[in-house]
Amino acid sequence: MTSCIFCSIVAGDAPSTRVYEDDDILAFLDVRPILRGHTLVIPKTHAAQLDELDPELGARMFRVGHRLANAVRHSELAADGANLLVNDGKSAFQTVAHTHLHVLPRHNSDKLRFARGLILRPNKDPEGAAAAIRSALQRTESTDD
Amino acid sequence: MTSCIFCSIVAGDAPSTRVYEDDDILAFLDVRPILRGHTLVIPKTHAAQLDELDPELGARMFRVGHRLANAVRHSELAADGANLLVNDGKSAFQTVAHTHLHVLPRHNSDKLRFARGLILRPNKDPEGAAAAIRSALQRTESTDD
Ligand SMILES: [Zn+2]
Ligand SMILES: [Zn+2]
Repeated sequence: MTSCIFCSIVAGDAPSTRVYEDDDILAFLDVRPILRGHTLVIPKTHAAQLDELDPELGARMFRVGHRLANAVRHSELAADGANLLVNDGKSAFQTVAHTHLHVLPRHNSDKLRFARGLILRPNKDPEGAAAAIRSALQRTESTDD
Repeated sequence: MTSCIFCSIVAGDAPSTRVYEDDDILAFLDVRPILRGHTLVIPKTHAAQLDELDPELGARMFRVGHRLANAVRHSELAADGANLLVNDGKSAFQTVAHTHLHVLPRHNSDKLRFARGLILRPNKDPEGAAAAIRSALQRTESTDD
């Protein structure tokens, strides 16, 4: 598994800016964000694609994505919405062969930034974005659980 | 709720080509498909956005999306992969205000069709696509549950 970058991140052998973690799931900032706060949610257990992923783990991955979608609205990021996206398979534009859910915080005015981000993927202020998301997750925790 | 087209579909007051149904979740073909077999998975209970949706229902919606992603690979559609996508909020391109998960069957050679589908969204052979997905879901049922 050492050849899988996401497994290395789970193991702490590769760096990442983490925003959420539990026994089964890890969420961290995409190093090539399309938009500020672009987060990846992964199962800690390696599964290349959805057809190798335990359905229960998939549901937990989605639950964390759902919480993040809510959290980014109520964070400093002040998102107006979010895209939740799984690209399953190379044909679906999956680039890392460890299944993952993208959470993209969206703003009413960001259509152009979104399109530009798809090409440039700049990494602006990851620590600030991560801190805002972590803090919103903590604030919403009590109401969700 | 009569003004919500997806609630009307759940109630059977508006037509749809259904591919899956249980007590909580309904899946049916998008009437304006980006690609053949483009399916929408919805909670039967109305929730405009993710922040109004019960997390448990969200997890069930994703489970059905996960099963569909597996099923379309093993159906007549012979997909090589799939995109699973929730557009949450107008800023994220949500067009119907009843939360839904898109399942887009993908093929290695469909990048151009995908882009064209985004614009044209033709409705080719819905009954054939739905029959293929239903049949694959039935065949994979025993292994999933
Ligand atoms: Zn891995
Ligand atoms: Zn509705």
